[in-house]
Amino acid sequence: MYKVNDNYLKLPGSYLFSTIGKKVNAYAAAHPDSRIIRLGIGDVTQPLAPAIIKALHSAVDEMGDAATFRGYAPDLGYEFLRNAIADNDYKARGCEISADEIFISDGAKCDSGNIQEIFSLDNRIAVCDPVYPVYVDTNVMAGRTGVYDPQKEIWSNVIYMPCTQENDFVPCLPKETPDIIYLCFPNNPTGSAITKEQLQEWVDYANRVGAVIIYDAAYEAYISQEDIPHSIYECQGARTCAIELRSFSKNAGFTGVRLGFTVIPKELKAGDVSLHSLWARRHGTKYNGAPYIVQRAGEAVYSEEGKAQLREQVAYYMKNAAYIYQGLKDAGYTVSGGVNAPYIWLKAPRGMSSWEFFDYLLENANVVGTPGSGFGPSGETYFRLTAFGSYENTVEAVERIKAL
Amino acid sequence: MYKVNDNYLKLPGSYLFSTIGKKVNAYAAAHPDSRIIRLGIGDVTQPLAPAIIKALHSAVDEMGDAATFRGYAPDLGYEFLRNAIADNDYKARGCEISADEIFISDGAKCDSGNIQEIFSLDNRIAVCDPVYPVYVDTNVMAGRTGVYDPQKEIWSNVIYMPCTQENDFVPCLPKETPDIIYLCFPNNPTGSAITKEQLQEWVDYANRVGAVIIYDAAYEAYISQEDIPHSIYECQGARTCAIELRSFSKNAGFTGVRLGFTVIPKELKAGDVSLHSLWARRHGTKYNGAPYIVQRAGEAVYSEEGKAQLREQVAYYMKNAAYIYQGLKDAGYTVSGGVNAPYIWLKAPRGMSSWEFFDYLLENANVVGTPGSGFGPSGETYFRLTAFGSYENTVEAVERIKAL
Repeated sequence: MYKVNDNYLKLPGSYLFSTIGKKVNAYAAAHPDSRIIRLGIGDVTQPLAPAIIKALHSAVDEMGDAATFRGYAPDLGYEFLRNAIADNDYKARGCEISADEIFISDGAKCDSGNIQEIFSLDNRIAVCDPVYPVYVDTNVMAGRTGVYDPQKEIWSNVIYMPCTQENDFVPCLPKETPDIIYLCFPNNPTGSAITKEQLQEWVDYANRVGAVIIYDAAYEAYISQEDIPHSIYECQGARTCAIELRSFSKNAGFTGVRLGFTVIPKELKAGDVSLHSLWARRHGTKYNGAPYIVQRAGEAVYSEEGKAQLREQVAYYMKNAAYIYQGLKDAGYTVSGGVNAPYIWLKAPRGMSSWEFFDYLLENANVVGTPGSGFGPSGETYFRLTAFGSYENTVEAVERIKAL
Repeated sequence: MYKVNDNYLKLPGSYLFSTIGKKVNAYAAAHPDSRIIRLGIGDVTQPLAPAIIKALHSAVDEMGDAATFRGYAPDLGYEFLRNAIADNDYKARGCEISADEIFISDGAKCDSGNIQEIFSLDNRIAVCDPVYPVYVDTNVMAGRTGVYDPQKEIWSNVIYMPCTQENDFVPCLPKETPDIIYLCFPNNPTGSAITKEQLQEWVDYANRVGAVIIYDAAYEAYISQEDIPHSIYECQGARTCAIELRSFSKNAGFTGVRLGFTVIPKELKAGDVSLHSLWARRHGTKYNGAPYIVQRAGEAVYSEEGKAQLREQVAYYMKNAAYIYQGLKDAGYTVSGGVNAPYIWLKAPRGMSSWEFFDYLLENANVVGTPGSGFGPSGETYFRLTAFGSYENTVEAVERIKAL
């Protein structure tokens, strides 16, 4: 008789955003006249930029003509896209990353979930607390996290690195030594950023203790301040300790288009085993590449036209972020984030828990946010709002909250 | 110090099609004037059908307009596509499969590689021999296959089910009892088909011994004979023992578009754990859905216009299959497949090994095929040709082989 992967059964409850979806649907069904504004899940709302639409149409036409039709993509992605990424995201910032160290995928969620597969089950992970749930959940599913404590909502074999007001939501080096360190900056969910100097400490630490950093830079397009690194490879020594994950979801609105990439420098080795070759093997065996038309859309992100249009799109969302930040501050909330990230992190008022504040906002302002406790125990009493709504909705949501 | 997943290091050599690619590239570089015809990898060559191109353009336009823009897709796929699949692929064939038992993905390669994750590492797999390499390799990477014997080219903890001329390339029930059985019909690589009666025996067997069948039906569109089932759910009892994988790559030319789906009936349970819920959890945690525009393209596959155009496309490839089959038979080769599948399976002549024949064909006819031994030990001395080339190339390839 076949048996299931018991690790799946250890996962408590269901995925954060599914729970939110169910609560919102139930509320909407009970209150059909309410106009709910969703500033919860990090989904974008602005349409794809004209340069991207043009590239998509053109690639679709190629697929309709035998002379230009494309079948299976190269395992690791088309060179035109990998070259555009290497030039624009790395060479232009002085980072030494070559096109063949870039692996095109269908998004950073998949990559951040799959990357743990190339590591031993014996490895111990360290995560920020609060944290994007995918890092922990996918390690639970693999069997790397030990026993769950439902009271404390923590796993026995995970090193949690609290990110709180005290440390400005940037974790301190952990007391216990991890093997794999997940870092995400600009941060989801707190909206905090890490300075180049702070990140250099992490790189030095990882090289010193023999840990690998999985650096999720999905939100780098939102960085507005000078001393905030866009890539971990801006730090000395990162090529021997860091994997970087990138997404097109937030800088180019590709949440429904699906495109991302992972960077693994060739120097990144455990003994004589290169992580680059393991990930290449995984891609070749379990994946068949991102769609050709989507890779052409990704290329358009780096065209002059595309870059100009997307700067405007990011500015649009950051105007929302600034509006939420200032509005909540004016209303007396304790607020952070929103300067180098599209997320605003606020403290629930009057001692409310995160979920209490979720229900309170949903019921009294018809505004949906994300409970901070859903991201980890140190997120309790915090709450995340995103800047990805329309400007009109964002303004209305803030006015409704201020009026409470 | 972090450690890697040692199971990856057990994988012998590199992935079959990468090896072929390297050999062909080396030959082409040394013989720049040769006109190589590729009938090796199962990649299609006909452009996307007009109905699909139309749907793609229309969906691209939706993505360029804020009023119709779509962000994150529903975890399990859009209802419009799941409904079209349930109606056309299942209800129309008398199979009781509902839309919410269908999980949309970016292709059957990913699904067939990922599906093993929801099972215990203790489970023992059974595979046809020869077999599509992804089933075995992904189980190796998970650590389920034991020790590799490089002489015999087999794994100690895999049950191999030889498919040979003697059993018409349809496996007999195994002597040892497996937990997970991979079946692919119409078969890749042999091009053989299984009758409904034969498949019913497998379903009965699986229910009897408590095994789960992973049924890869990626080639069902090529079935031309009456008594060949298009889905395992045509068999009584399949809802309690079978998962079905489907692809849009071969029926609609989506190898570079990326779309597939997995069917898990809700009755499929290990004790009280439903496999449907485990796979839903995997999708929700590790995947973010197929692109909206691609799901709209999938919907167009089921439109009246799309169906008519794709019947023609399949007929085009099957004309190639018939040409190869007859041509090689006339030339004295022992040939099978090609009637319900786009693959022709032939015996290498004059006692040559599969790779000897690969080199012989590449060097003397400039035709690329796939060595049968790359699919497993029982594939040795066999060779696969695909019908996915253009008609002109197919005819020329066959004439070149006949002239040898």
